[in-house]
Amino acid sequence: MSVQTDRTTVKRLADRGRYDRETIDAILDEAYLCHVGMVVDGSPVVIPTLQARVGDHLILHGSPASRMLRGATTQEICVTVTLVDGFVLARSAFHHSINYRSVVVLGQAEKVTDEADKAAALDALVEKLTPGRIPFLRPMSDKEVKGTTVIRLALTEASAKVRSGPPGDDEEDYELPIWAGVVPLVTSYGTPITDPAMRMEVPIPDHVVDFRA
Amino acid sequence: MSVQTDRTTVKRLADRGRYDRETIDAILDEAYLCHVGMVVDGSPVVIPTLQARVGDHLILHGSPASRMLRGATTQEICVTVTLVDGFVLARSAFHHSINYRSVVVLGQAEKVTDEADKAAALDALVEKLTPGRIPFLRPMSDKEVKGTTVIRLALTEASAKVRSGPPGDDEEDYELPIWAGVVPLVTSYGTPITDPAMRMEVPIPDHVVDFRA
Repeated sequence: MSVQTDRTTVKRLADRGRYDRETIDAILDEAYLCHVGMVVDGSPVVIPTLQARVGDHLILHGSPASRMLRGATTQEICVTVTLVDGFVLARSAFHHSINYRSVVVLGQAEKVTDEADKAAALDALVEKLTPGRIPFLRPMSDKEVKGTTVIRLALTEASAKVRSGPPGDDEEDYELPIWAGVVPLVTSYGTPITDPAMRMEVPIPDHVVDFRA
Repeated sequence: MSVQTDRTTVKRLADRGRYDRETIDAILDEAYLCHVGMVVDGSPVVIPTLQARVGDHLILHGSPASRMLRGATTQEICVTVTLVDGFVLARSAFHHSINYRSVVVLGQAEKVTDEADKAAALDALVEKLTPGRIPFLRPMSDKEVKGTTVIRLALTEASAKVRSGPPGDDEEDYELPIWAGVVPLVTSYGTPITDPAMRMEVPIPDHVVDFRA
């Protein structure tokens, strides 16, 4: 299923564009952060927030007081997700680059009001942040669910842009004795820091030791 | 020097707002990526790109054909930079969070036309991506400098937003036998992958071995 529209067609370096849901979903599912763009008083505003995909929607959440969440359901927004995979070191400054996978989703979001949908969306966000943790938590209260706004943006108008592989240098530069290649970027997780306010001894659970393994 | 304006004043969780250049510059200098927001045909568009700070300006660059770079000098843009430091695991789903440092810069960018300024800006971008590499490279040609658009955005209207430290749980939840704390996120660099198109043996230089150490 293609989610390509005129607006989501990659113009610059068009061969990096991808429009299949498989590519797009994989990027959305690996990333946890997104940057939400909207227009406020005629000027653009870009706000970072957590995202999770549930089926054919991207889920965002936050306080009912959030201007971002209110704005996202009354106007077109742009949600951009970017993963950086490595630094591309060429023989010339000009051909240096970054290996990346990014997704842009356009559309107007809608508020999730159905209680079951909302609970599922909130679970998806927690599961995204910290897989396997939900059964260990104090269950969500009605007050908390009511006190959280959840919105969803349909994945109907979107695109991915992907760069991978070695540098592409000018033909004559390959004769130069300059090391070129890619330095991969690796995201990992450090030793968990136990909350100093813990009132009892609780061993660090496996889902934390193997955090997002 | 404060860069706080009404538009850059953090409204949600206002105690996380910072307006001093020292905090803002440190975040911009540690991050290499930014998300640029602008308005295209009335709708917001958010594009990821590399950034570097040179003094009191944020530098962006790209192809002269880039709609983003052209748009950024003819309208107000919003540049957002986000660093994620860790995942905050609370006792309730509700209080889960992320430790982060983000910066928002607002304003209209200007094209850098002075040749010396432009060369310095491009050097800053390469130095940002891969510190210490410039002396090893084939020098930039006039054609490359002319074929690259460089714009700069003054750091006059900006703000940072910072969350750090352990979770903040509901008072009664501290009595629950649930492990809580922070899992730090660590960004590191993998083994450099030599370009398979190398035509000669060149040892991996120190600035690559110690990449952004």
